[in-house]
Amino acid sequence: MNRKNIKKSIELWKKAKKIIPGGTQLLSKRAEQFLPEQWPAYFRKAKGVDVWDLDGNKYIDTLASIGACILGYADPDVNKAVKKVIEQGSISTLNSPEEVELAELLCKLHPWAKQVRYARTGGEAMAMAVRIGRAYSGKDKLVFCGYHGWSDWYLSANLADDKNLDGHLLPGLKPKGVPRGLKGTAIPFNYNKIEELERLVSENKNIGLIVMEPVRYQEPQNNFLRKVRKIADQIGAVLIFDEITMGWRLNIGAAHLKYGVNPDIAVFAKGMSNSFPMAAIIGKEKVMQTAQETFISSTYWTERIGPVAALATIKKMIEKKVPNHLHKIGSLIIKGLKEAADNNGLKLTISGLPPLFHFSFDYGKNSQAVRTLFTQEMLQRGILASGTIYITYSLKEKHAKKYIESADEVFRIIKKAIENDNVCNLLKGPVAHKGFQRLT
Amino acid sequence: MNRKNIKKSIELWKKAKKIIPGGTQLLSKRAEQFLPEQWPAYFRKAKGVDVWDLDGNKYIDTLASIGACILGYADPDVNKAVKKVIEQGSISTLNSPEEVELAELLCKLHPWAKQVRYARTGGEAMAMAVRIGRAYSGKDKLVFCGYHGWSDWYLSANLADDKNLDGHLLPGLKPKGVPRGLKGTAIPFNYNKIEELERLVSENKNIGLIVMEPVRYQEPQNNFLRKVRKIADQIGAVLIFDEITMGWRLNIGAAHLKYGVNPDIAVFAKGMSNSFPMAAIIGKEKVMQTAQETFISSTYWTERIGPVAALATIKKMIEKKVPNHLHKIGSLIIKGLKEAADNNGLKLTISGLPPLFHFSFDYGKNSQAVRTLFTQEMLQRGILASGTIYITYSLKEKHAKKYIESADEVFRIIKKAIENDNVCNLLKGPVAHKGFQRLT
Repeated sequence: MNRKNIKKSIELWKKAKKIIPGGTQLLSKRAEQFLPEQWPAYFRKAKGVDVWDLDGNKYIDTLASIGACILGYADPDVNKAVKKVIEQGSISTLNSPEEVELAELLCKLHPWAKQVRYARTGGEAMAMAVRIGRAYSGKDKLVFCGYHGWSDWYLSANLADDKNLDGHLLPGLKPKGVPRGLKGTAIPFNYNKIEELERLVSENKNIGLIVMEPVRYQEPQNNFLRKVRKIADQIGAVLIFDEITMGWRLNIGAAHLKYGVNPDIAVFAKGMSNSFPMAAIIGKEKVMQTAQETFISSTYWTERIGPVAALATIKKMIEKKVPNHLHKIGSLIIKGLKEAADNNGLKLTISGLPPLFHFSFDYGKNSQAVRTLFTQEMLQRGILASGTIYITYSLKEKHAKKYIESADEVFRIIKKAIENDNVCNLLKGPVAHKGFQRLT
Repeated sequence: MNRKNIKKSIELWKKAKKIIPGGTQLLSKRAEQFLPEQWPAYFRKAKGVDVWDLDGNKYIDTLASIGACILGYADPDVNKAVKKVIEQGSISTLNSPEEVELAELLCKLHPWAKQVRYARTGGEAMAMAVRIGRAYSGKDKLVFCGYHGWSDWYLSANLADDKNLDGHLLPGLKPKGVPRGLKGTAIPFNYNKIEELERLVSENKNIGLIVMEPVRYQEPQNNFLRKVRKIADQIGAVLIFDEITMGWRLNIGAAHLKYGVNPDIAVFAKGMSNSFPMAAIIGKEKVMQTAQETFISSTYWTERIGPVAALATIKKMIEKKVPNHLHKIGSLIIKGLKEAADNNGLKLTISGLPPLFHFSFDYGKNSQAVRTLFTQEMLQRGILASGTIYITYSLKEKHAKKYIESADEVFRIIKKAIENDNVCNLLKGPVAHKGFQRLT
């Protein structure tokens, strides 16, 4: 297959890196994370599961803007609701009534929660949740597991040991510019390691918060979530579930509903509003009321598009039983990938749940080069693909079939390249970056 | 004049306070800040300078969503650009080309700046600027003046003395939940007090940042900004100008352009995108490059509406010479208010510049009751009014005349009430809140 002409996107990406440090606002959208020097970094149009780059090439996008869309791009129903409030005015000195309607809906879906606050990005929503948790518990120290964004409270974990955050999704996160006075305030533990958490809370008497995703690529084992809840109750800690990535994918609402364990605060962002900036913090009344005793306030949190988009998105997800679709299509692709790997004799490890899963090629120090070759060859076949797949409502069975057929073809190429030990020779550019590193 | 029927808004506000701690996401939009129990807290529609509440009453809004709009609500040109990208898809796994175009425009308008990063709210943009400044200087301690949002770095000033932030726009901000390890990292100084700043930097040898608005209600006196710049250079501190409130009002771009003093980093949010969530951090290359050495990343920062709305807003502000309009209309209202106060023998202090100014009634402990009566009586005359006015491009001479005539009528009522010592008797509800306090 011929190499696609993606000149405009590549030129713009080069220009961007000179004027925007890191090139983009999200590490995971850097061209170097996918396919250095070969990635169509910019889009002109996106609709459903399709994306058009600046040079007019059309792709199936299997990453859904790193999970920010669940219905698919430019969903007609959500867009209709949003365009209506833009016409009617999306802000004023008075407040948006939809804030109250959305709060009621979120509490109805999560009956343990009685109060709600909003933000517009996941990072600031997590910072707000941690502020409220610290204010309520009166303690600064927290234990956490997983990835929770760019804020000081989180990155401070790497002040004590710059490898503390390795293994929590993104390796190499640097805490430069995070005040040293925060050293020791955020202590990591590993998912499903209840003994580790028990040891940490017995060694540290002043832990006020436990912060974690209820599930990501692993499911809870041996009543893990229930045991975490019990520890939180025993030490009087506020349990915060970060539902930014997993919320709305496994069922309508938070992933923790599936496991029957309730936190004190849950945080939503990506997924709840089909890409329009929106975040919500829901919680028990006694905890959330502390938000009145600490200053948490921002002008853009009052605009109207966020709550209107969230209402339209959630209503459509309910009406169309979207989580069922995500499960069905995700299961189909997982099955197809496994079969394709087996057919071609490739060592592939798949982890996660059908709506959002991850796979890696197990070839030691060559693994990342193999993943890069996969992305390169899938791109040639009109698919934006990496080692992670976010299923959307717009990703239908025909797209799944096309993805599996393409993966099967590419696996054959990869297998042959591994046998001939020429994976890197087949790459038309450098191997993709892994984790956080400086762009030049 | 008859009391307006605002039943629906009042009922919804009561309901909101039960489910949203503080009722709204912005302190300055609480009904209690304007007119407790009497304020139409919610809007159905907003267009230009007009706002319609839930009961269908129409008002002239003189607060422009606390400054978030400069062109006016639902501006047709900005809305057209935004609706177009919503149709075309406002996000994808690939990036938005408009990010680069906006970065180039911001650097063209501020030739000292060479690099740009984005966020979606003012609070997180300031947190990002402080992170970059700390990473570059290698020092955690900063001095600041003025109001800069809800983040830990700022509220930590009140850990050392809970009145540190009084006098910096909002009194009574509580730092509950801010880690105690940040104590002493943020030290306040007062605007135009160069000796105070000189003393602070000589007493504290490890100050890495100076954070301030270049101007707000006072203009710089005796070369204040130039002297601050000199101190920053002498101690090797990063100078950050918070342009969130004043940017784009005095001239196209940052307010500091007017005074000929450049910071190392400037931060924009409100005003730059006519109410669509957007924020930008611009800076010198050597400083901004540090953003590559500390992890700063968020998914919603990559959506496309923000940069598209900013481009459309800035282009229209340039084309229509909007700052000239703001100056003209603001000057007209200031003149009219002064005359009305003089005519009625009222003690009124006006501070600020024409596009954004503040006035207070000087009646000692009665001042806030008088201000509440002003808001109550202006509301009866169809005007949303407080002690602050944000002029927009949609606020035309006819609105200014209506405002001045109404203020003149209301001043007469106030004067009589003061003479009869019955200001509080004329209030149909409690006196408005001042600063930060718990809502019940």
